[in-house]
Amino acid sequence: MEQTIYDTIIIGAGPAGLAAAIYTARGNLSTLILEKGPTGGQISLTDAVENYPGFPEPETGYELADRLQRQAEKFGAELKNMTVSEIRRDDRQFVVVADNKELTARSVILAMGADPRKLGVPGEEKNVGTGVSYCATCDGAFFRGKDVIVVGGGDAAVEEGLFLTRYCNSVTIVHRRDQLRASAILQDRAFAHEKIHFIWDSVVEEIVSGEKVEKVVLRNVKTNEIKDHPIDGVFIFVGHIPNTKLVEDLVELDDHHLIKIDLWMRTNIPGLFACGDCRTDAARQMASSVGDGVTAAIAAAKYVDELAAEAE
Amino acid sequence: MEQTIYDTIIIGAGPAGLAAAIYTARGNLSTLILEKGPTGGQISLTDAVENYPGFPEPETGYELADRLQRQAEKFGAELKNMTVSEIRRDDRQFVVVADNKELTARSVILAMGADPRKLGVPGEEKNVGTGVSYCATCDGAFFRGKDVIVVGGGDAAVEEGLFLTRYCNSVTIVHRRDQLRASAILQDRAFAHEKIHFIWDSVVEEIVSGEKVEKVVLRNVKTNEIKDHPIDGVFIFVGHIPNTKLVEDLVELDDHHLIKIDLWMRTNIPGLFACGDCRTDAARQMASSVGDGVTAAIAAAKYVDELAAEAE
Repeated sequence: MEQTIYDTIIIGAGPAGLAAAIYTARGNLSTLILEKGPTGGQISLTDAVENYPGFPEPETGYELADRLQRQAEKFGAELKNMTVSEIRRDDRQFVVVADNKELTARSVILAMGADPRKLGVPGEEKNVGTGVSYCATCDGAFFRGKDVIVVGGGDAAVEEGLFLTRYCNSVTIVHRRDQLRASAILQDRAFAHEKIHFIWDSVVEEIVSGEKVEKVVLRNVKTNEIKDHPIDGVFIFVGHIPNTKLVEDLVELDDHHLIKIDLWMRTNIPGLFACGDCRTDAARQMASSVGDGVTAAIAAAKYVDELAAEAE
Repeated sequence: MEQTIYDTIIIGAGPAGLAAAIYTARGNLSTLILEKGPTGGQISLTDAVENYPGFPEPETGYELADRLQRQAEKFGAELKNMTVSEIRRDDRQFVVVADNKELTARSVILAMGADPRKLGVPGEEKNVGTGVSYCATCDGAFFRGKDVIVVGGGDAAVEEGLFLTRYCNSVTIVHRRDQLRASAILQDRAFAHEKIHFIWDSVVEEIVSGEKVEKVVLRNVKTNEIKDHPIDGVFIFVGHIPNTKLVEDLVELDDHHLIKIDLWMRTNIPGLFACGDCRTDAARQMASSVGDGVTAAIAAAKYVDELAAEAE
């Protein structure tokens, strides 16, 4: 029995992976998408997306993910709920091991995304979308005139905190240490900003909500003092975890464990492409991930054509 | 009277420019978009778009452009129908001259697009969308099992011709010379392909249509012989003209007159960004242009924040 060789296997069915599949499948490349979780990746957990271009009225992330999936399947892409445990290069093909089955492909598009690091405190998970956010660009506009806290002390926390001042009445940065890790220039900017306040040496112990977030419970790590802090929103910027462990021995990563790519989403391995939040310097928006996926798909189609020509 | 300084002026209201505007305006940057033609750029001339992720059913380019415009205006972006004649850097601002008025901005996002070079023959313009196309990735899927001609002899013509064999019954390359300009490896591939045929020393004189394209009239440039050639579709790849003349003395361009950018759509000039088909290595799809625009907008917002901080 001859084994099927896919023209491309796409790892991950978030916006990047699904957009890539729309293009590879429509381009008549036999396309398999492997996803271990729900379709849509991070977007599937988002209540209201109002900034994906083409939808002037807010749409749920679930609906957008479903639309992408239907579009990819319409052109013939196959989506399987499988967990990938290994990807290796074998001669001029890739072997993808998923649920202990070996699958073979001429090209692979990596679209595994990244997850924001969670605080892991009570009230966090259930309030995503009702007051807890990991993205100021995505959700800041929903907090016009409100008071929010930002958790974290690195560049991302301070940058996003500054961005939130565009909308919010006040932005209080809660940090576990007594000084920021962010670069000096960002620190200066934050200290000079009238809307930005600081609570030092403190961690969030709990996020308390009724229909929406109402307050956080803070603990001073030096005195162990517990304090309630009433608030409308909690923005958490304590890092991202790129889902790139799977490929760390296969492909070149940057210092943040993100996959290095060029403007065509090509990695350092011929036939291997990366797009969306798992690649270096991603803008981390649904639209930019979709654009990445389309670009990767066009590059992959060209690669598969070249491979076919060389084999003749 | 003090003059308004916009946080950002976006040049061009195609998918890249409108997507950028959605993000800058939603990010509370005062945003002006300048467009000399119809909203939507190239997409506004496209009858059916079936590959913009999020729309499983085909949508007209006009409708998609309108949706982007409404979304940008909803967040406060201002769109003016004006022709830009000059952009210059003035201290830490940009001066944009449009319809003889001087406008000032902290940042500028270039999204002027590129136009496919036309043949300029009778029947060409009126059949765009009914048999004449300038993009195989966009329109190839509409020609499954059909016979098409490709006009051109460079890399693009041969690459797109090869791509069209995925769908078409036959692909005939019509070239004005007796040999291709395309790279040797592409030539080898085309000559070896059973679906690809050639008509040498010939130019299209006219595209003849009823409801759809029916035939082309070819002229042999050596013998002046005129010949009808029945055909379902005409794909024209005789080059693109990037709309970058306006900025050729301002910003670094590549050999194809496209604007050089990095992964954040930053040009060599601080505060000046470029996205969509006017930038180097563009994938030339609505989705990739939209992704570019979003990325440029995020980079521009960051730049404007930094500028404000430095001024303090």
